[in-house]
Formats: sequence, C-alpha cells, structure tokens
Amino acid sequence: MTTQPILINDQWSVRPAEDSFGPENPSTGEPLGETYPVSGLSTLLAMAEHARQAAEDLNHCPPDQIGAFLETHADLIDKRRDEIAQMAHLETGLPFQPRLREVEMDRTIDQLRQAAECVRSRDWMSARIDTKLDLRSMYEPLGGAVLTIGPNNFPLAYNGIAGGDFAAAIAARNPIIAKAHPLHPGTTRLLAQCAHDAAAHADLPSGSVQMFYHCKPDDGLELIKSQHVGAVGFTGSQLVGLELKRAADETGTPIYLELSSINPMFLLPGALDARCDEMAEMISESLLAASGQQCTCPGLIVVPERPAGVRFIQQLAERLGDAEPQVMLSAGGVKGLHESVQHVIKHGAELLIGGRPVSDTHARYEHTLLHVDAARFLEQPESLQHEMFGVAALVVVCEEQEQMVQIARSLSGNLTGTIHSDQNAPEDRQLADRITGVLRPRVGRLIHDAVPTGVSVNASTVHGGPFPATGHPGFTAVGLPTSIHRFAALRCYDRVPERSLPPELRNTNPTGTMMRFINGTWTNKDAQDS
Amino acid sequence: MTTQPILINDQWSVRPAEDSFGPENPSTGEPLGETYPVSGLSTLLAMAEHARQAAEDLNHCPPDQIGAFLETHADLIDKRRDEIAQMAHLETGLPFQPRLREVEMDRTIDQLRQAAECVRSRDWMSARIDTKLDLRSMYEPLGGAVLTIGPNNFPLAYNGIAGGDFAAAIAARNPIIAKAHPLHPGTTRLLAQCAHDAAAHADLPSGSVQMFYHCKPDDGLELIKSQHVGAVGFTGSQLVGLELKRAADETGTPIYLELSSINPMFLLPGALDARCDEMAEMISESLLAASGQQCTCPGLIVVPERPAGVRFIQQLAERLGDAEPQVMLSAGGVKGLHESVQHVIKHGAELLIGGRPVSDTHARYEHTLLHVDAARFLEQPESLQHEMFGVAALVVVCEEQEQMVQIARSLSGNLTGTIHSDQNAPEDRQLADRITGVLRPRVGRLIHDAVPTGVSVNASTVHGGPFPATGHPGFTAVGLPTSIHRFAALRCYDRVPERSLPPELRNTNPTGTMMRFINGTWTNKDAQDS
Repeated sequence: MTTQPILINDQWSVRPAEDSFGPENPSTGEPLGETYPVSGLSTLLAMAEHARQAAEDLNHCPPDQIGAFLETHADLIDKRRDEIAQMAHLETGLPFQPRLREVEMDRTIDQLRQAAECVRSRDWMSARIDTKLDLRSMYEPLGGAVLTIGPNNFPLAYNGIAGGDFAAAIAARNPIIAKAHPLHPGTTRLLAQCAHDAAAHADLPSGSVQMFYHCKPDDGLELIKSQHVGAVGFTGSQLVGLELKRAADETGTPIYLELSSINPMFLLPGALDARCDEMAEMISESLLAASGQQCTCPGLIVVPERPAGVRFIQQLAERLGDAEPQVMLSAGGVKGLHESVQHVIKHGAELLIGGRPVSDTHARYEHTLLHVDAARFLEQPESLQHEMFGVAALVVVCEEQEQMVQIARSLSGNLTGTIHSDQNAPEDRQLADRITGVLRPRVGRLIHDAVPTGVSVNASTVHGGPFPATGHPGFTAVGLPTSIHRFAALRCYDRVPERSLPPELRNTNPTGTMMRFINGTWTNKDAQDS
Repeated sequence: MTTQPILINDQWSVRPAEDSFGPENPSTGEPLGETYPVSGLSTLLAMAEHARQAAEDLNHCPPDQIGAFLETHADLIDKRRDEIAQMAHLETGLPFQPRLREVEMDRTIDQLRQAAECVRSRDWMSARIDTKLDLRSMYEPLGGAVLTIGPNNFPLAYNGIAGGDFAAAIAARNPIIAKAHPLHPGTTRLLAQCAHDAAAHADLPSGSVQMFYHCKPDDGLELIKSQHVGAVGFTGSQLVGLELKRAADETGTPIYLELSSINPMFLLPGALDARCDEMAEMISESLLAASGQQCTCPGLIVVPERPAGVRFIQQLAERLGDAEPQVMLSAGGVKGLHESVQHVIKHGAELLIGGRPVSDTHARYEHTLLHVDAARFLEQPESLQHEMFGVAALVVVCEEQEQMVQIARSLSGNLTGTIHSDQNAPEDRQLADRITGVLRPRVGRLIHDAVPTGVSVNASTVHGGPFPATGHPGFTAVGLPTSIHRFAALRCYDRVPERSLPPELRNTNPTGTMMRFINGTWTNKDAQDS
C-alpha cells in the first residue's frame, strides 16, 4: 500500500516510513481509505537540516515576501474552502456548517492575513536605536526551525501548517516544520498544498515550509532536541505536552505549550438572583459548543448555596440533558472523557446527569454535570480541578462566601477565569473584587459576565496563562502581533556599519511608517547620526 | 558565635541556621571576621510564604510608590558609596577606585533610577485596549516572588538586592527574595540595609524585599519549586545554572539564566593589515579588565594565518605578559581557571604564555594565552569552546578564510560576537558579511570593530543570547525597560467593568503620558467607549 507523500524541502516525497496509519470517520467508525506515513527519525532530521539552510536564507528575505506568502496562502485556502471544510468534517466530526466552513475557516484565513499585515508593518520587531552609542536592537528570527504541532480540536485555526502558531512563527521569518494531528491528516494535507503553492508563488527559500504527518514519540523528542530546531509550538494534552517540554528544556529550546484548563467560573449571589435563567442559557451554550472540546470550555462552576443557585443547577442540568450529544473527535476522546469523569467521581463528586458513553457505534458521550460541596472540594482541590475534555462540568456549591475565595486561591494556572456578578449589588461588588484579586495571577484572561469560549484574534487578547495552562505566563498563543514574540530572538548591533545592519535598524525608516524607539521616543521618522 | 541576621518579612532576624560561613579577603586569604548563616529550608519557605502575601498587596501598589522606593534605594546607596565600595573591595579584591566606587557604583545607582523612571512612565506595561470588543491587556506582576541570585563578579550591579535583576523584578511589582553571593555577604548586607530602609520610607507592603545569605543546594532547589516563587533570575556558572533550570522547569517556573560565554572575536585580514597594533592594545585591555572575570570577556580570538596575524599574537602575548596579574575573586576562582586552561590544553591547544597560578598567598593566576590551528579546533569545537573565567584566551589560527566561517558555524550560543574588518577592503567586507550571517543567530550582541566588555544600561542594548549563554533567546538581562518583561505576566481583561480594571486599562489615561495601543494605534490619549 502506498502512503501519502510528506512535504520535505519543497517536494512532495514518499520516504521510507516506520509505519503507516489511516484516519477514520468518527461519526461512523469507518476508515476514510487513505494511508499516511509514520515518518522515521532520519526523515525528521533531514527536514531539520533543510530548515537550517532555510533559516539562513529567510533571514535575508524582505518582509514583504513573507507577507505575500501569507496572503497567497490565505487566498488559496479561501478558494478551496468547501473541499477543506468537507475533509475536516469527515475527519473530525465537527459540523461542516457554520462551524468549519465559515467560523473556523474565516478565523484561519483572517489570522493569516493579519499576520501578513504585521509582517509588512514591521512594528512587531520593536526596533530600538540609540544613535549616540550606535546601539541598535530588535526581534529577529530564531535561526532554526519552529516545530508546530497542532491539536485535534481545531483542524484549521490551530493546524500546524495554517494556524496561529504557524502564522506567528513564519511571520518572524522562521522556517516551519509542521506536524499534522493524526486525527485529521487529510485536512492537513490540503492545507499543506496551499502552503506549498503559496511558498512557490512567493518564491520563498527551499525548505521554508515542511510538513509530516506522524512519528513515533521518541523520534519526535529527538527532533525537538535537534540543534536546528529553534522553538516548538504545541497545543494538546498535558501528558504529551510535559513530555515534549522535558526534551525542549534539556536543550534550552523555547517551547510554547497550550495545555489543559478548566476555566473556573464564579457565579455571585446577586448575579444568580438577578439573572439565573439567562446565565444557565449562556453557560450551557458555552459548554455545548464543539461538544465541549475547546480549551476554554467552562469546566468548573462555583455557586453559592441559595435558592437561585439550586435553580441555576437545575436549569443547567435540564438544558444539557435536553441537548442531543454530538459526535466527538474520536473514540479515544470519548474514552479519555469517561476516565476524567470517573476520576472526579472517585474524588467525591456526584453525578447529576450523564456520566456514560452513548451506546451506539458513534463516538458520543452523554452530557455530564457533577456537583460537590465546597468543603469536600477544598480537601483535595488538586484532584478535583481535573480537565474533562467534552461536555462535562463540575459544580461546586459553597455554604459560605468565604469558600468562593478559598476555592479561587486553590486553583492552579488556567487560560481563563470568569466572574458573574451584579454590579448594582454592593455585596457582589465587594466579593467580586476579592475573587478578582486572587484569580488575577492565576489566569491569562479574566472575564466578567460572559463566557470564555470564542477567542478573538486581536491585538488586545491573551490566550495564555500560568503553568500548567501554558509553559510561560509572559506570552499569548492568539493575537497579532503579540503572538509573534514567542518565536523571535532579541538581538543587538553594537557599532555595526550601516551597510551591514538589517534594513529596520538603519537610519532611514525602511517603510516610512514603521514605529521605532529612537533615542527615547517612539517615532516613524528616520534616525539622525549623533 | 552569633551569625548576622537575615532580612525576612521586614525584620532583621537571627534564625536557626543549618550552618555558618565567613568570607575571606582574597588579597590575603585572611578571614574578614564576620559570620553569616546558611539558612535552612523552613526559613526559605517562610520567606516564600511572606512573599505570597506581599505579591497580593504589591498588585495594588500605585507605580509611583515603587518608583519612590527605587529612587530612595538609589539615594541611600549613593550616600553610603564609600562604605559599600570599601566592603566590596575587601570581599572581592576588585579595585576600590575607580572600578567599585565609581564605575560599578554609578551603574548600579543609575540602573535603579532608570527602573524608577520606567515604573513611573508605565510604558513597559504595553497596555492594549480594544474598545469595540472591550478587551484589554497588559504586562502585570507574576503573582509570586522573584528569587534573584547574583554572581560573584559584579558585587553591586548584579547584586540580588540592588542589581539589574532586582531592579527589573520589583519594577514589575514582584516581591523579591534575594540570595547573596557567599563571596560578598557583607556588601550584600549593606545593600540590603539600603533596600530595607527604602522600603520602609516608601511604605512598601511587608515582605516586599527579603534577603538571605546562603543555603544548601537542595534547599535552594526546593525554594525554586515553591508555588510562591514566580520566577528566578540567576547569573553564574553553567553547572549551577543548569541545576537550577532543571528544578524551575519541573514546576514551569520561568528562570532567566546568564551563564557562560566565550565571546568569539574574528579578526579579518584587512583589519589586521591596517591596524594590528591598535587591535592588540584594545583587545588586551578588554581581556585584562576585572582580571578577565567578566561574562563578556573575549575568550576566543580567530585570526587568519598571515604576517600581521603573527604580529598580532606576539603583541597580545607581550601585553598580557607585561601586565601584573591582579588578585582574583577567590582561590576557588583560580582553581577553576586552572582547570579550564588544562581542559583546553588537553584538547590540543598549546600555551603561548601563562598557564599556572602565581605562587604566592594571593589568589592570582598568570595571564594566559593559548593557540590552536583551525583544523584542530574544527575537529572538536565543543571541547575547545570552553569558558576560561579569568585573563585567558584561545587564539585559533586559520590557514584559509573558509575556516573562519566554519568556526563561526561551530559555535554554540554566546552573549556577544565581534568582527574586526576593514570596511574599505572589498574582501574583508565580503567575508564580514558571510561571518555576520552565520554569527547573527548565535549571539545576543554583534559588535563591529570594538570590544565586548562594558555593557551600557540602555533601552537598545541586549545582554542575552541563545542557550547556553542564557536560558531564553527572547530576553535581555540588561537594559530598561526591556529587562522588566522577564518578570511579567501577560494578562487580559474581557468585558471587565471600568471600576474593576487596573488603572492602566481604564479609558482615562492614568498619567496623561503613558503610551497605550488603543484600537490599532499607539497613543497617549484617553480611550473612548465604542
């Protein structure tokens, strides 16, 4: 059986493989009929070697060339919108429309175009010039490949060859080695075709954009440790992420992880009394979106013990129970979700609804709601703040308001934290302030009176947070130009003659509009020698 | 024997200690007469617990209060300039004047004042506001202590309680747990007195600034893994630094390391022909400064085989040989230097001058110059790019120009790299371009026609570089406001009501001058709700 070729050094090439695999349709459990290679270490290291040369060449590429690549890539994906969304639907079971064909597709295309704009403006480089000392610095490419490893749950917007890490890493002019997620290799193949065609169109250096489908775990770790890999971007499970992190840490390679998050949500008494039904509707919709398979899905809901709290829980349970379970990304995902639910039950939570796989041939799981009282939660907060990746949430019921603050204090790092309060009720305001103070250093994005799902690609957003939600609290995985800084090195030129400087650090502003920090002031003017 | 108290939760306090130690005068080998504690784990964890509370309180401190603290700290150090420089001279053997009393002291004071200015301007926070989505983000404190661990070689400017890491970490409003370097505890005590008095004067929250002298290695690793430690700043040896890194990596704690660097220098043919004598003078002075005990000391000098190259080596050897070896920081440092020189000899380098400790009671080492031919170097580049911390350099002689490029390609991460060329000679220009291309991703600061020693505290500088020179290529340890970002978390507020926002993210510009990115434009104007 012939396997699909991988994209190596600008060629679609069939290489000797360690093994092969075939994706299946999670809606039916049937194989989709294509066979993809599990690439061996020698192939991975060959890609790294090609990337080494590409890194040197890309260093000299004008930003406009990268901008043209990103825009063409976006255009080509846009043109093949139906075909790509159809393949993603077959491979992931996510709804074709509007989820894949419009929502995620638009976000993916928009992200690539925003990255192109950032590349052309060059503002993200943060060029700083001191003419008196003749000292000039800015963000530059890393000098090696960025290995982008996309997750199962966003086959387009987080795809290693088209998603956020990809856009940010190549915006900084790093070559890319993308790894497909093995649950959607066909989608990744189509996106890689767009990337390959766009790279040819923009005449990018050979090896700027490479892609493989799968590898043995140990071979992946060896690739990470290669001296030609400058950084890694990974979105996925904590278990795998921490293994990759150990390999990257060993060689001092920056690795950006987006791992698990339970996205705690605090419903304050006044808010419950004022808008219980509205919140139940909003939160159930957030939980149900994408079958709960989103990193910002609200998995921990803290409510005070009061009539409106009881009503909220009832309403939430009803809404989740009434909705039909949708197909999940894979049978493995269903198994993982069930294990997580069992783990939370084992540590004292009780089932309100759900808690079992749906007994048919599809990969589906009953919508699940659990509850536990605050005292119990606070006895073993580490065991009970456990991600359940799917439509499943744990409600913690607090007899006393103080327990809400204590629960906030017991949380480890999360991508988001949400507070629902009634700003007209002085007691809610005071409690919200206290919880905010405790929650603030524990989450990347603090939300008021809304839900955490639905992340905007925006200069002001932060999709990040403290460990173990991510690997570093100082960065964001979403948002441009901010996410580019993950894949850049800060470098300085000390008394280097004008002709040997990168254009962005010469006296003349290379675009006429680029913002540079010259002798203490941000300006788009030229620098004058002192 | 009573030991000196440590500074814990705003008290100078004598705690039960694991052990004690006394510094000695490296010029004489005599004990200096004071005894300092080796603090135990329970003391370290108590400091972390105090810092936890301080982190919550500092989050609410107005920036001006931190600014006032930094300025008062600078003023108090300035007032005690003679006393502090005298103590540092006794403990380190570094020259009292001008090195300690003027040069390093001025840099230390200036750095604290620059940090105060950054804190007051708030520009470093990079506040970003999108009024349409009501999405606002900025850099904030980490939410835990920063453990600052200073090195032996800059008792003032890198001191854990007064140096660059300290200034940057508290500028971001993080509480500090400073560890003294055991070779200059008295200097650290005096600086900590200034910090303590300044904290009282500025009314900082309790536990904002703490200091201990020493600990057992394992206890230090436990402190790093404490959940109340938000980040670590370390400058010192690669061996120790990598051990700390392993502990920090385990708990996902950001750690910023400034480790070894050999600061390669390439002398191009035209430059040698045109200004051989001048370069020998400049480079020998750079090597001799601070007895070679600087992280930017040029330890690897690559020269082409030609008459001017031979003359350069002769002149450099003469100048180093003629200078009188100065006292080093410690007898341990002399031992370490000797081992490094032996290591380089073992791998094929030959001694030109020096290579032995000076046989007297003082901690001194003969100025040392070694050479090796390029072919030999390229056989085992990893073994031969070995830091020799002192006045010692390895000259690599290249038969062919191509070898200079190959040597550049064989280098691992360094803080600096220097090229001396004759910009009027086309051949030099071409070779300089090629070496620049290869060197650029391997160093933090690329220097032309000058020496790497002498780092300016400037917004445009980068004192950083790829692993293993540092732990992350995207940051700088020197320079303000840039170095502050190491100790900050990126956080976002999503539809949070105005009154619950930090002042820097409210619509009204809190200073009237702070630069914020509002709806796509950097501005110091107020934001208007959409």
